[in-house]
Amino acid sequence: MKTRAAVAWQAGQPLTIEEVDLDGPKAGEVLVEIKATGICHTDYYTLSGADPEGLFPAILGHEGAGVVVETGPGVRTLAPGDHVIPLYTPECRECKFCLSRKTNLCQAIRTTQGRGLMPDSSARFSLNGQTILHYMGTSTFSNYVVVPEIALAKIRKDAPFDKVCYIGCGVTTGIGAVVFTAKVEAGANVAVFGLGGIGLNVIQGARMVGADRIIGIDINPARESLAREFGMTHFINPNEVDNIVDAVIQLTDGGADYSFECIGNTQVMRQALECTHKGWGRSIIIGVAEAGAEISTRPFQLVTGRKWEGSAFGGARGRSDVPKIVDWYMEGKIKIDPLITHTLKLEDINEGFRLMKAGESIRSVVIY
Amino acid sequence: MKTRAAVAWQAGQPLTIEEVDLDGPKAGEVLVEIKATGICHTDYYTLSGADPEGLFPAILGHEGAGVVVETGPGVRTLAPGDHVIPLYTPECRECKFCLSRKTNLCQAIRTTQGRGLMPDSSARFSLNGQTILHYMGTSTFSNYVVVPEIALAKIRKDAPFDKVCYIGCGVTTGIGAVVFTAKVEAGANVAVFGLGGIGLNVIQGARMVGADRIIGIDINPARESLAREFGMTHFINPNEVDNIVDAVIQLTDGGADYSFECIGNTQVMRQALECTHKGWGRSIIIGVAEAGAEISTRPFQLVTGRKWEGSAFGGARGRSDVPKIVDWYMEGKIKIDPLITHTLKLEDINEGFRLMKAGESIRSVVIY
Repeated sequence: MKTRAAVAWQAGQPLTIEEVDLDGPKAGEVLVEIKATGICHTDYYTLSGADPEGLFPAILGHEGAGVVVETGPGVRTLAPGDHVIPLYTPECRECKFCLSRKTNLCQAIRTTQGRGLMPDSSARFSLNGQTILHYMGTSTFSNYVVVPEIALAKIRKDAPFDKVCYIGCGVTTGIGAVVFTAKVEAGANVAVFGLGGIGLNVIQGARMVGADRIIGIDINPARESLAREFGMTHFINPNEVDNIVDAVIQLTDGGADYSFECIGNTQVMRQALECTHKGWGRSIIIGVAEAGAEISTRPFQLVTGRKWEGSAFGGARGRSDVPKIVDWYMEGKIKIDPLITHTLKLEDINEGFRLMKAGESIRSVVIY
Repeated sequence: MKTRAAVAWQAGQPLTIEEVDLDGPKAGEVLVEIKATGICHTDYYTLSGADPEGLFPAILGHEGAGVVVETGPGVRTLAPGDHVIPLYTPECRECKFCLSRKTNLCQAIRTTQGRGLMPDSSARFSLNGQTILHYMGTSTFSNYVVVPEIALAKIRKDAPFDKVCYIGCGVTTGIGAVVFTAKVEAGANVAVFGLGGIGLNVIQGARMVGADRIIGIDINPARESLAREFGMTHFINPNEVDNIVDAVIQLTDGGADYSFECIGNTQVMRQALECTHKGWGRSIIIGVAEAGAEISTRPFQLVTGRKWEGSAFGGARGRSDVPKIVDWYMEGKIKIDPLITHTLKLEDINEGFRLMKAGESIRSVVIY
């Protein structure tokens, strides 16, 4: 079949809209009509050429929502008409990682996914006979995609695609880090470094679980009002205090119980660790640092009880937890609508990247 | 009263044996006759002058066991004749830290203890009218000491002082890191960096809780046989492999579930983190690094699920957990006797420091 898609031909170049050839689903695979997709910083990172693992030509996009059109042989958990969110972190429920019950980092198809291929080591996309690679196993910048069954979360049918697509990455990454990775408890004090989309979702996750002080930290004062709407109780601009670590410690009677780094800056990661409470503070790294950058601290910080951790995809097991987050949205426990600052047509996708780069959007969503 | 004690007059000088004046216990304090004390690297570290917080003159020693002689006003949990182990990490059961249930780092008397004083800001030791400071709140290089009630663990009376004194620091630090800090589960793979006294106790802790592979790592091949006796299943000499991180990963099908750094070397701390398993590996720093040294790694190590943590006094709550460890020794679950390589009289204490510095002892114990 044919599908409209935005193709990334090479790093640093705008996407072009093409009618791409798409092979149908093979065993264990599912054909999905993508209804909406967010444009995430990770897409931008890869498109820019900064991602050392970026491959081209490829169809980017990893934050989608859609409808199952057709299932390949052996698919048992999905049927045409089901609503789904594609998962760049799958959940096979059979690998050592899934069975460990200690991580969400299913490794079942990691190798082929990293090479831009389906699990059988081939691609489903092509144009004029040239292979076009998949991206993060999702390629949601295509109207139709083929995705492994284990990489699709089945969600309720009354959820709006143009909002819950954001749960495919940003919402889950932020809220999940609070709920699934850190398991923040009611009454805890939380410090959130960086009030972009991830930071705002961390904040509303902390509010949902009943955190006490929710301290937002950002050098951009314009972020304060929306962050307060999402549950932030205190705002600190690092440029307005002598020492951001001391400022958090003073606001929390000794340090935050939990901190979250939502920027990708290794100096901020250190501050986030060191502002947590002696004896039990836990600092969760969410942001992706530039290649080669390293974090440092004195080991005394850890020996006196702080823990340094990280979170990927919010610690969420995609098929199990993503449907829950959709429920939380539909039940009004979390907000997504104010974060979707722009909606675009596919042919305007490069404008979405421009808005992101310029800091003019929180999240732009492409509606097919 | 008078007591015999080894006094550290200044950094870098041998201890001298003196008849020191000791004031009796004030409110909340207990007079203890020390029957035996280990000589620990931390005593050596302070005596050497390398400890920036070291104060002189002082009576060092923090790994003792003895008998209660007299209790001050208000002491309710101890009576003359009780057998006790002094605790450099007390357990007041009333401070924010004790009540958190998340840490063993009771802060009730931290400030005065750090200044070499009792909680009322005075010292009980003097000689010819000159104050001699306490050390770590314990000063077990004195035959008689005054210790706060909250810094004494009451233990069974049939436990031999010259063995269980080692539980006052080294044994608890190693075994506790496994049992209380990491909570290693049966079947886990464990890597232990450094096979000195702490490392050997980590190994026997891992054996006690049913760990599967217990991998010991040391550049000194002479450590292998005793470590095997304590439960080590595999030995790696880093000088005999290309890459110690890869060697551990290969031995454990992807990485250790838990690793313990028992040396105090920040480069080894990094190796200990990076050899743990993607998704859930936890690395516990026990060793004390030199002042100013920093640990580093790429944040990707944490974002992909490894956790970097530390342990002080094995995460043990002294009054609650130290008596349990004494029981484990008496029940044969753990060994101490092979680790006590030398016993000395107080007047030979400087020989104990020499043996430690020369690497000729695992633990020297002074018997009063």
